[in-house]
Amino acid sequence: MTDEGNGQMVRARIAVSIDGFSAGPNQGAENPLGDGGERLHDWALETESWRREHGREGGEDNIDSEVIDEIQQGIGAVIMGRNMFSPGRGEWDPEWKGWWGEEPPFHVPVFVLTHHPREAFEMAGGTTFTFVTDGIESALEQARAAAGDDDVLIAGGAETIQQYLAADLADELFLHVVPVLLGDGDRLLENVGDLRLQQTEVVGTPAVTHIRYAVG
Amino acid sequence: MTDEGNGQMVRARIAVSIDGFSAGPNQGAENPLGDGGERLHDWALETESWRREHGREGGEDNIDSEVIDEIQQGIGAVIMGRNMFSPGRGEWDPEWKGWWGEEPPFHVPVFVLTHHPREAFEMAGGTTFTFVTDGIESALEQARAAAGDDDVLIAGGAETIQQYLAADLADELFLHVVPVLLGDGDRLLENVGDLRLQQTEVVGTPAVTHIRYAVG
Repeated sequence: MTDEGNGQMVRARIAVSIDGFSAGPNQGAENPLGDGGERLHDWALETESWRREHGREGGEDNIDSEVIDEIQQGIGAVIMGRNMFSPGRGEWDPEWKGWWGEEPPFHVPVFVLTHHPREAFEMAGGTTFTFVTDGIESALEQARAAAGDDDVLIAGGAETIQQYLAADLADELFLHVVPVLLGDGDRLLENVGDLRLQQTEVVGTPAVTHIRYAVG
Repeated sequence: MTDEGNGQMVRARIAVSIDGFSAGPNQGAENPLGDGGERLHDWALETESWRREHGREGGEDNIDSEVIDEIQQGIGAVIMGRNMFSPGRGEWDPEWKGWWGEEPPFHVPVFVLTHHPREAFEMAGGTTFTFVTDGIESALEQARAAAGDDDVLIAGGAETIQQYLAADLADELFLHVVPVLLGDGDRLLENVGDLRLQQTEVVGTPAVTHIRYAVG
């Protein structure tokens, strides 16, 4: 168990198709979410909260919008896999600063799991990117310290969340289940052993069902 | 599309684990739901409605109980696969009358898909079992006629539901998503092509989330 006594939680969240994929097949630089993978995120792009975070007006003020607002609250640090940060593999292209432009929507320290060392750097709005080459436990330790009393978000992708679930290092799994079939791609819930999950919340709209599980 | 103008619907429903399996691995006569598969049905056994249907008292009068009551309503015929009716394969054991005792909980004509001919027979309470050897479309035609103005339920298992979804013969898919991981077994949502699904209802308890989709 990961609660160190200060109430800090380690929360994983990710969108999945109803056939269980968090990205489509044939991912690459030109196709970062894989074939059809962008359909997992359409619901978010329609919300008022997502649009506000990304400097746009309008959008639906619905349950999905509330969910997006809520999941940002109380997050003091973020962990993500290399593939979520960058289309490239192998040695770093130092020009690549993530998908999110000059002011990424995190506003907290972000720890990127990678096998290739890179210097940390800071973006506008309080987001820093730190590159961790010595494994998921080290990344979590650094994220916990950076988050203070706030929670740590495991943001994806599928393989990163699998690793934290398999190591019993996540307290919560929050799935956005989208009514599309991808047929192939990155399957989320495999290689995680027999987790004990307790379903604690279900809300949704026709575009997506949000299911929250307590782990362990 | 399958609506023949009288409002009759073809409804598929089944329980799935959150990793997408409708039965565990190693299914057989001694293990009809596969390893861990019984965990997909624990939520139902706790309900007042299931217990009442099976001649027992008590149980929870909650949303899950309402769902079980609701899904029986307006069903005029049922289709199921051989593996849902019987542990055996190949030629029939004429002594085998299904898993459900003298009075099965269907109370309508049931059509069993099989490659092996067998005479139809009747049980107490209005359930008849008819064995269909000439394919899913024939079974559906017979079930539609037997159901009259009522709906046809595709009861499972996974392969049977897949076949009807892939052939675009189902109007509705109703999933009972259970917070367990089976890791292996009969995967429900594969080999069904790129269905167009519209999520129309989400309700649940901590034990299960019920998600209804309109198909096509």
